[in-house]
Amino acid sequence: MIKIGILGSTGYTGLELIKYFVKNKNVVVKYVTSNRYCGKKYSEVHTAMQGIFDMVMINNDDAVNIDVDAAFLALPHTVSFNYVPLLLEKNIKVIDLSADYRFISADDYEKHYGVQHNDKQNLKKAVYGIPEINYDDIKSAELLANPGCYPTSAIIPLYPLLKEKIISNYNIFIDAKSGVSGAGRKAADNLIYCEVAEDFKPYNILYHRHKPEIDEKLLIFSGNRTDVVFVPYLLPLKQGMFTTVYTKLNDYDLQLNYIKDVYNRYYSDSKYVRFRQNLPRISDVVNTNFIDINFTVFNDNLIIFSAIDNLIKGASGQAVQNFNIMFGLDDEM
Amino acid sequence: MIKIGILGSTGYTGLELIKYFVKNKNVVVKYVTSNRYCGKKYSEVHTAMQGIFDMVMINNDDAVNIDVDAAFLALPHTVSFNYVPLLLEKNIKVIDLSADYRFISADDYEKHYGVQHNDKQNLKKAVYGIPEINYDDIKSAELLANPGCYPTSAIIPLYPLLKEKIISNYNIFIDAKSGVSGAGRKAADNLIYCEVAEDFKPYNILYHRHKPEIDEKLLIFSGNRTDVVFVPYLLPLKQGMFTTVYTKLNDYDLQLNYIKDVYNRYYSDSKYVRFRQNLPRISDVVNTNFIDINFTVFNDNLIIFSAIDNLIKGASGQAVQNFNIMFGLDDEM
Amino acid sequence: MIKIGILGSTGYTGLELIKYFVKNKNVVVKYVTSNRYCGKKYSEVHTAMQGIFDMVMINNDDAVNIDVDAAFLALPHTVSFNYVPLLLEKNIKVIDLSADYRFISADDYEKHYGVQHNDKQNLKKAVYGIPEINYDDIKSAELLANPGCYPTSAIIPLYPLLKEKIISNYNIFIDAKSGVSGAGRKAADNLIYCEVAEDFKPYNILYHRHKPEIDEKLLIFSGNRTDVVFVPYLLPLKQGMFTTVYTKLNDYDLQLNYIKDVYNRYYSDSKYVRFRQNLPRISDVVNTNFIDINFTVFNDNLIIFSAIDNLIKGASGQAVQNFNIMFGLDDEM
Amino acid sequence: MIKIGILGSTGYTGLELIKYFVKNKNVVVKYVTSNRYCGKKYSEVHTAMQGIFDMVMINNDDAVNIDVDAAFLALPHTVSFNYVPLLLEKNIKVIDLSADYRFISADDYEKHYGVQHNDKQNLKKAVYGIPEINYDDIKSAELLANPGCYPTSAIIPLYPLLKEKIISNYNIFIDAKSGVSGAGRKAADNLIYCEVAEDFKPYNILYHRHKPEIDEKLLIFSGNRTDVVFVPYLLPLKQGMFTTVYTKLNDYDLQLNYIKDVYNRYYSDSKYVRFRQNLPRISDVVNTNFIDINFTVFNDNLIIFSAIDNLIKGASGQAVQNFNIMFGLDDEM
Repeated sequence: MIKIGILGSTGYTGLELIKYFVKNKNVVVKYVTSNRYCGKKYSEVHTAMQGIFDMVMINNDDAVNIDVDAAFLALPHTVSFNYVPLLLEKNIKVIDLSADYRFISADDYEKHYGVQHNDKQNLKKAVYGIPEINYDDIKSAELLANPGCYPTSAIIPLYPLLKEKIISNYNIFIDAKSGVSGAGRKAADNLIYCEVAEDFKPYNILYHRHKPEIDEKLLIFSGNRTDVVFVPYLLPLKQGMFTTVYTKLNDYDLQLNYIKDVYNRYYSDSKYVRFRQNLPRISDVVNTNFIDINFTVFNDNLIIFSAIDNLIKGASGQAVQNFNIMFGLDDEM
Repeated sequence: MIKIGILGSTGYTGLELIKYFVKNKNVVVKYVTSNRYCGKKYSEVHTAMQGIFDMVMINNDDAVNIDVDAAFLALPHTVSFNYVPLLLEKNIKVIDLSADYRFISADDYEKHYGVQHNDKQNLKKAVYGIPEINYDDIKSAELLANPGCYPTSAIIPLYPLLKEKIISNYNIFIDAKSGVSGAGRKAADNLIYCEVAEDFKPYNILYHRHKPEIDEKLLIFSGNRTDVVFVPYLLPLKQGMFTTVYTKLNDYDLQLNYIKDVYNRYYSDSKYVRFRQNLPRISDVVNTNFIDINFTVFNDNLIIFSAIDNLIKGASGQAVQNFNIMFGLDDEM
Repeated sequence: MIKIGILGSTGYTGLELIKYFVKNKNVVVKYVTSNRYCGKKYSEVHTAMQGIFDMVMINNDDAVNIDVDAAFLALPHTVSFNYVPLLLEKNIKVIDLSADYRFISADDYEKHYGVQHNDKQNLKKAVYGIPEINYDDIKSAELLANPGCYPTSAIIPLYPLLKEKIISNYNIFIDAKSGVSGAGRKAADNLIYCEVAEDFKPYNILYHRHKPEIDEKLLIFSGNRTDVVFVPYLLPLKQGMFTTVYTKLNDYDLQLNYIKDVYNRYYSDSKYVRFRQNLPRISDVVNTNFIDINFTVFNDNLIIFSAIDNLIKGASGQAVQNFNIMFGLDDEM
Repeated sequence: MIKIGILGSTGYTGLELIKYFVKNKNVVVKYVTSNRYCGKKYSEVHTAMQGIFDMVMINNDDAVNIDVDAAFLALPHTVSFNYVPLLLEKNIKVIDLSADYRFISADDYEKHYGVQHNDKQNLKKAVYGIPEINYDDIKSAELLANPGCYPTSAIIPLYPLLKEKIISNYNIFIDAKSGVSGAGRKAADNLIYCEVAEDFKPYNILYHRHKPEIDEKLLIFSGNRTDVVFVPYLLPLKQGMFTTVYTKLNDYDLQLNYIKDVYNRYYSDSKYVRFRQNLPRISDVVNTNFIDINFTVFNDNLIIFSAIDNLIKGASGQAVQNFNIMFGLDDEM
């Protein structure tokens, strides 16, 4: 029986982790934390969980002293710095869903997040884990930096194409639309129902923090430098992400089947990468860990579509995938 | 040309007032206030208004010194107390959309709102105005207390039935569903998109502040004491309110046509009361000042349906109706 | 291994059945039917199921010849008549989700559905099954008539109160709001997105077919005759049902705790009846088999709230509950 | 007083025309048609119009004999062919909202719509009218072909850039998202609430009929041949369209201000083209005739955002603009 704890459990990603683990017979949840709701039952905050998960929440500081095999951190960025060193010291494996350990370079983190990086020591140990790409690194990870949702949706389809030099590095337009849960579970003027329903809008265009994450990881994984155009949008729906990538083929005469073969070579063993007969759509992946992909060619343009559940494959589901690999567990979701 | 000012202009009711007055050729808006966004253009907050209404907002304290004929107060309750006395002193007519002057008894206000009433002096002058019921009182009002949305939707259909003793006072169940804009334009945990979309729930059952407002006004208007069961719900939509009233007929043998005649007698001159051939629905009244009504009899039960736009007939539209009556203006919406 | 077939598999209730059974290790789905999509893979119609359930659909006539232990009929009413006799003849147990075998009296069926009842023979065998109420009857059922969604949401909370004579039979107002999936998966003018979103409306008031179902079953289960006022509404959401029942207490001095005790006595062993600490809400029960209940007293009025997922506890989930009881299977959902 | 008729009045574009004209004092609606609802009052179909527009609908064949100055055709494509010749013969000016007279070449129409063009004679007379681009042609038009919604949203921002050779003809990616009303008011499997809400998906990619319309019109207006990549999506909202265009600058060193100046030169007199300080969003333009535009440069990439109401600027609003120009009327919406 593997013992885990969840820090920052009341957000949407924390909730998805709990929903997964209450059904899992090989894992026991030893604690869940919430500094805000500390002392309350989990089901008082997420009322749907009444009778299913009623554990009383503790605060973060008390949690780090509890003996577990792994800790999931679903905390806001910069908060992870306070707990990761303490956890690693106790040989507790860490899966961090925040951005704190995602960048290889602390400088880049500091530049794009506008705050100091307070744990450069452990940053070196961090493994940025996309199971479909760097499975072996994940197996031996002690500190797992779980990818952002937008990067997951873009990197999985782009990586084989760049690696195989099928597309031009400098013609990558990423048009990515996210459901509202991507912004987290927080009261904010621009997230209230009346400001979202029946509306659609771009935000943080070009300078969203996930853009440099995409460029850095594509470089590391594929060996090719990119400078992607990244435009995110807010969709009037709760859960789901749809990403379209507009690119240029290096070879005008390339056949569609060639691309299919490449994708097959990279992902045929990946049970959560689902190449579609039809076009992807968000409702096909909601509440699943799938990334649905399809693509088409027009003149020398290659257009790729991907759909994920931003909270599952884009966050907690991928975190569980990574956890399962780190602990050699069967992967059934 | 009538000069008006709007205090508390950036909420949804303030916005509806402005949308109305920018199209009105007999009225000029001299100022709009927002303590929070003071110094900004209105269209920086409500971006849809770019090029339509770009006036720079001032704060409340500066506004009261500006010479206008009428001031609309779309402020949170208790805030009106600070400005109503100053405005009335300058002979500025006041239309207050808050709850501060709605109750006849300051004690009841204090009991149900849990705060002190700080302007008992002017409370005596206040006219609670539903144009379809007490038109003449409104004509001479200096301080107009604009009704709540739920009370509007329930009192208009109930008042003639109680006055004519058609229904039993003590068997009135009001099941009332409101769109999210009824809660105002504020960041709150329970109003964010993910907590509202694809959901439906009751709240503040029995003890909502609009219940005593309904009972007090039904007593004053009809002469009959009630103690209504009032259950409000949050609908996953932006704008609109649907109210069902379940009641018992005093006379089992009463004909449906008799009720139709009564309603006709009370409301046939009221251009915003629209008796429906079909059943009312929210989409029929959104962005209008109508209250749509229909009803049916089953055994000795009378069931009445009403639909309004909570921001228009339930707030700003009715405020404009009252304003037009106070100033002898044509009423075209 | 129990073998089952599903007739009428592409509607929303058929889909929920399949989602349940693909995860179930004791049951194998031998066939799924669709006269419209016959010959296609299931995942061509419900694309989310690609890689999960790709079985080719057959037509109804071919299906009845296949050897299974149980057949679920998720067909429109009147269509079940064609297949139930053939299936029962082969000793295949039938769980019928249509209305065809719900009424005890064929006359009532014919009156309220406006069509002839073509299988009066088997009607006598039919067991109307709500596991929380008539578990023992279900155990030995060969033909199970699965209840309607509205009746489920109203009967479970009302039955103990009527049986114990806590409430007055003739003062029962049922205000019931359903998500759009309740109308099935069919192209209809009034179900398209633009006619539902941002709207709310009653429909078929008083004469909805579920009203006589409620009255008949309350009489059979509790021994008390009712003539409920039943008003259904369409909510702008996909899945979920919220029912409020306004009733009068027979004894003004009755304590809330007494009612709690009664409910406990009837339902403390029922794992899907969840009495709430907070008020029920639709999002708490979506994708679950729970019926969430709470209630309150005001003067001599008792107001009861219930929430279910109309497709699960209101249809396929209850069908699976009934199936599990009929086959002595463990009930884990 | 100008007399008009509306053929095909019950769709969403017909409704928008009526909403506009009931408020217009210079225009009288002489007839509205609906072959399906012929003989019914308009407000029986669009119940929101009860008391506002209750005219009885006639059928198309009867309508063409009625004397009016202008006829709006909001009919499905191919149906216009039956009425346009008859109307023009009587010197009735025609504003056709269908696709039938949009293409200059009948061959292209036949190829992309898969049907025969039955009125090649009048096709020559047709003026494709975007008031911001070819105002003078519109003034003298007898037969006005009203543009499609997607083309409107893409052509207005692209035309000056192509004309001034600021962007590369062969690097134009149009990512365009439409609300559901764009598909019209018709019962279809894929338009029902449960198939649209909480979902997002592309459809008819690359081969949507609006793609050749965009290419043809950009060529005619700007003199430059394009072969745009066009990907349309269905948004889970009723009304609104958001279009993002990803392009390459011809001159890497071009300043943002230069583009601003060009746009100013072309559109500063166009009251419905609104350059935004912030990023466009759908809610800013819903129920208005505005096209909101903004753009940004990143490396040698120019990204342009536009938002319109698909039913207003994308259909009926633009039709009214064109009508007003044809009849020399003031243009106030």
